Amino acid sequence: MATNILDSAKVLEQTIRESAEFIHLKQQYDNVYADEATKKIFDDFRNMQLNLQTKQMQGEQITQEEVMQAQQQVMAVQQNEKIAALLEAEQQMSNVIQQINKIVMKPLEELYND
Amino acid sequence: MATNILDSAKVLEQTIRESAEFIHLKQQYDNVYADEATKKIFDDFRNMQLNLQTKQMQGEQITQEEVMQAQQQVMAVQQNEKIAALLEAEQQMSNVIQQINKIVMKPLEELYND
Ligand SMILES: [Ca+2]
Ligand SMILES: [Ca+2]
Repeated sequence: MATNILDSAKVLEQTIRESAEFIHLKQQYDNVYADEATKKIFDDFRNMQLNLQTKQMQGEQITQEEVMQAQQQVMAVQQNEKIAALLEAEQQMSNVIQQINKIVMKPLEELYND
Repeated sequence: MATNILDSAKVLEQTIRESAEFIHLKQQYDNVYADEATKKIFDDFRNMQLNLQTKQMQGEQITQEEVMQAQQQVMAVQQNEKIAALLEAEQQMSNVIQQINKIVMKPLEELYND
């Protein structure tokens, strides 16, 4: 593959690493994981999300108990300021990634949609 | 958002545009679309793929007639050298995009998997 592309991708990778959004996300992530109780709430929440997504993709039924458990975990997450800050930082980073993808995929977009 | 990221993404976009893989893909695409009969075979094939994917995602049954039609279209595509060359070029471009994504997503990968 053209070394130009790899080089440009590596430059982009480095600018992401050095970006305010990524550094902020890392800090919020470290804040959550530095506190055992907060870490547990967050891990439970993520595992629940993953579990429900997997079930949905496989067309499996979600039980009443799982719905109630999910609601409790969402409430626990919403009441935790460190996790709220992490989710916000993740959303910001996700916006950055979306903008990057839009730019990088433009050549292929144009090829297929013109 | 940091202008650095947007600038780096735009540089990457430009290197993609100028890459041998993208220029080759464009040529194969133009070859297919320059020929009406070939264009029709390719469009029918892509529409069939999209149709079957949509049905699969929505959990709908694929009819016997659709299976036979799909088989005929796959054969027509395989026997067409221009389309074969386009599919090959698409695969190569897809590999490039995968490598780019792997590099660009490394910071987030590391954050979540370390
Ligand atoms: Ca075009
Ligand atoms: Ca880490």
